[in-house]
Order: sequence, then C-alpha cells, then structure tokens
Amino acid sequence: MPADTSFTQMLADYRQRVELALEARLPAVDIEPARLHEAMRYAVLNGGKRIRAVLVYATGKALDANLEHLDAPACAMELIHAYSLVHDDLPAMDDDDLRRGQPTCHKAFDEATAILTGDALQTQAFHLLAHELPVDIDASRRLEMLETLSLASGSRGMAGGQAMDLAAVGHHLDLTELENMHIHKTGALIRASIKVGALAAPSVDRSLLKKLDHYANCIGLAFQIKDDILDVEGDTHTLGKQKGADLARDKPTYTSLMGLAPAKQRAQELHEEALASLSTLGASAEALRGISEFIVRRSH
Amino acid sequence: MPADTSFTQMLADYRQRVELALEARLPAVDIEPARLHEAMRYAVLNGGKRIRAVLVYATGKALDANLEHLDAPACAMELIHAYSLVHDDLPAMDDDDLRRGQPTCHKAFDEATAILTGDALQTQAFHLLAHELPVDIDASRRLEMLETLSLASGSRGMAGGQAMDLAAVGHHLDLTELENMHIHKTGALIRASIKVGALAAPSVDRSLLKKLDHYANCIGLAFQIKDDILDVEGDTHTLGKQKGADLARDKPTYTSLMGLAPAKQRAQELHEEALASLSTLGASAEALRGISEFIVRRSH
Repeated sequence: MPADTSFTQMLADYRQRVELALEARLPAVDIEPARLHEAMRYAVLNGGKRIRAVLVYATGKALDANLEHLDAPACAMELIHAYSLVHDDLPAMDDDDLRRGQPTCHKAFDEATAILTGDALQTQAFHLLAHELPVDIDASRRLEMLETLSLASGSRGMAGGQAMDLAAVGHHLDLTELENMHIHKTGALIRASIKVGALAAPSVDRSLLKKLDHYANCIGLAFQIKDDILDVEGDTHTLGKQKGADLARDKPTYTSLMGLAPAKQRAQELHEEALASLSTLGASAEALRGISEFIVRRSH
Repeated sequence: MPADTSFTQMLADYRQRVELALEARLPAVDIEPARLHEAMRYAVLNGGKRIRAVLVYATGKALDANLEHLDAPACAMELIHAYSLVHDDLPAMDDDDLRRGQPTCHKAFDEATAILTGDALQTQAFHLLAHELPVDIDASRRLEMLETLSLASGSRGMAGGQAMDLAAVGHHLDLTELENMHIHKTGALIRASIKVGALAAPSVDRSLLKKLDHYANCIGLAFQIKDDILDVEGDTHTLGKQKGADLARDKPTYTSLMGLAPAKQRAQELHEEALASLSTLGASAEALRGISEFIVRRSH
C-alpha cells in the first residue's frame, strides 16, 4: 500500500523534524538553573506522539506554508501539551507515576521541580511565538497565533477542561457534559494546532479556516474517544501507562457511558465527518486525511 | 508635605485603576468552570501592593503614553505575579498558609485548583497582551512586549529564580549567589514592568530604555532587601504573613548574610543609584522617584 507507506514516512519525517526543533530550542542543561532545565528537557523529549506538531506541519503544508515557518508554532504546541501533562500527572491532580513508560516528571525529579517545569514550559511556548517567528510572517498574523494559543490553553480552553475533568471524578456526567469537557481539555489545543499552522501560510482564506476548524473538532473528539477505547482494550506495555487507569479512578469515559461498540462507531463517524470537511481540498490535504485515519486506528 | 501627598494619591489612583482593570478582565464566576474562575479572582483580587502595575503606569506616563494603552500591560504583569505567588505557596514549594492575611489559594480551594489557577493566570497574561492591546500600538511593539514578558517569567527569569530559591534552602549562599537568585526571582518581572510600560509609549529612545533598566535593577534589588528586613523587623499582622518565616525555613536572606544595619545601608544606596539613573528625566519621572523611595520606606 504505497499511500500508507508515504503517510508513515510523512509522520516519521515531521516527528523527527519537531524532535530536532525542540531539542535545539529547550534550554541546555549547563545553563542555570540546571536541574530545572534538565527537567524541562526530560518532560518534553520523551518520545511523545507529537500529534499537535504533525497537525501544524500538515496544515501549513496543505496551504503552501514554508516548513521553516512552522517549526516555532509546532514546538509551541508541543511545549504547551508537555506542560499540561507534567501538571496533570502531579499527586494533587491525576497522581500518575508513569508517562510513556517512564517515571513522570515529579517522580524522576520532585514535585516542586515538576510544578516549575510545567510553568516554564508554558512560558517558553509563548516566548517562541513572540520571539522567533520569521519577520516575513506579518506581525499581526504572529499576534493572532499568540492569541489563538493563549485562548486555547487558558481557563476557557485546556486548563478549564482539566478543571472540568477533576470536578467530574466520582460524579455522573452525561454524554454532552463529557463532550464539553473534552472539547476544552484536548480539543482546544488540537484546533489551535491547525489554526496556527494555517496562519503561517502565505494567504489564509477565512472560509477554509472554518472548514479546517470543523475537521479539527472532529479529530479532536475522535482522538479522545479512541483514548477511552484504548484504556479498555489497550495493553499496558504498549500504552506506556496503566490500562484501565481511568476506569479504576471512576472517571467518566465514552466507553463507560456509551459502551465499547457504540464508542467505536462514533469514532468512525467522526473520522468520516473530518474527511468530508476536507472535500474542497485536493491532494495537498492528503496528510490531514491520513492523520484522521491514524487517530482512529492507532494502538497507543 | 505636598510632594508626598501627591505621590500617595498617584499610588492610590494607579492601584484603583488596575483593580478595576483586573476585575473587568478576569473571567466571571458564572462562566464554566466556575470554581476555577472563582479561584482565579480570589488569587488576584486580594489587595496586593500592585507595585508592578504601578511601575507600568508610572513608566508609561513618564514617556507620554496613553493611560488606556497601559491597562493591558499592567494587568498582564499583575497576573504573572499572582500566578507565581499561588504556585510558590503550594505545599511542595514554600508551603504557606497565609498570603496578605488570607488563606492561600490551595487552602481556600484545594491543591489541584491552585495549580490550575496559576496555570490559567499565566495564560491569561499572555492572552491580554496578544488580544487586547489597541491597534494604535504597532504590532511589532506588541510582539516586543510579549517577548519581554515571556523572557522575564520563564526558566531564565522568574521561574528560574524560584528554582534557584528552592535549591538554596539549607545551603550556604554567598551574597553574589543570593543576588543572582533575586535578580531572576523578582528582579526580572520588575524590569519587564518598566520595559512594557516604556514600549506602550509613542516613541521609545533605546538609550533611555537602558537607563530605565538600570533604575529597574536597583529598585528590584532594593525591594528584595527590604523584604528581608521586614521579615526580621516587621509585624506579622501588618505583613499578612508570619514574621521570621524565611529565617525559620533556613532560607538565605540579605539580613542573615550581611546583618541588619548593612542591609539597610545597601537598600539606601540602591535607592540613590536608582534616582541617579533617572537624572536626565525631568518632572515626568517624579512618580518613578517616589516608587523607589516607597520601596525602601514601606512597612509591609
């Protein structure tokens, strides 16, 4: 299947690209405070899936953006994501010991360092966008990227979603409430990844932005549903975290509310809706189509 | 003393201005997630000294900036400062129960909410600068404000200083190391307050920016030395926190390293150096001179 092969290659290329870009941008461990910088690198350079970075690159390329213009936005999205994981894993939050098969940041270092690591990673995400975007991206576009990222990560975006998630433990949520929580917790950053990728392109058609945003909404929800499916069906070794962890914690999930088979059906429907919203785009959006498929097919 | 009276009035006016500006910008408690928004308001609207906001206003006015242009930068500085206090007070960090005479955020709410509150306040600071600055401030100036704030708050600024502070507990620091810690922990944000205020002005002379930065360095250090003096001499009720708290925690302080009288002498010298660096500015810088004096004379 040549299409699959080229998608797999694209994924590997973008991942490698963002790994190198992150590696180059994170503060070196010989700069003081060394332990904080070591923890920042540990929390980020840990073999994540880099879905958000891949979305930035794939969206930008679909709209003819220069790859070099996408590095800072791709890194910014991954830094925000990494900060959120470090804080979510803390004892006062989800209290997780493992992340991608390795000790979580507060286990490998200590709680105080993990709190500061998340704080400093968030700051660095904004610094990259403010400081580093090439001048041939218009300053007002760069401000719009910063606005997009900050709106998506704050109390009305990702951080708000985590607050909703914590408030939901031990409570009954219906599907609408569960969806609302995920739209904030993971969906907002996925939408922002696609928008900042598009904003780095030479020209941005606002009606196309709307379609891309719908695509983003669909894959964001599909991503979360698939996560819940993997929590039930996945293998602890492959997942890099305890299978059934959410269930054990009495967290509401799609699978617990809908059942496993309907959850799989919903993920498939969202995948198809995502593809439909790309219908006016040609071959340049092939990578975005592949990502949607990848999200619902992945095994971890 | 008419000069003192007008300074006191200016301080009260700027404080009131930033209180109203913050109140208007913080998310309302009837917006979900309500508890997070309540905690964000609790952590910010608590009668802080608002030194950073006052510095933004006073610097901007000294350079003929429009007061309306200074609201978002002033609020951004206070949001970053408030986020840092919420996280610094956490059990894994300084483990403080009182802040300005009230229960700290994690005591009034809970630890998870306090972590998210700090996170979301940081994000909102960047959002204000990206989203809200009037279009008659040039976009590249607005980006420079965002760059300034992000550099000052991250691992090579405020967050790095907190990491150095934590690493110093129980260790011997010499004066140079103590000063380096404070230059990062509190000095970076004070310098940034003055720079973003200047960047909101119609024109910015880079050589004047350098002088203002030296002023900022001096008052930043003086502020910290005075804090250490108050930790020894202050009254728990007036301070709103336990007197001798730093000493009890075996934290290095100026007073423990230098002795009380030499610490007071150094604060006075820094005050005089701050005034000297404003010598080319006329009456428009009177407020900045008053702030320097206020910092070394304050009783809490």
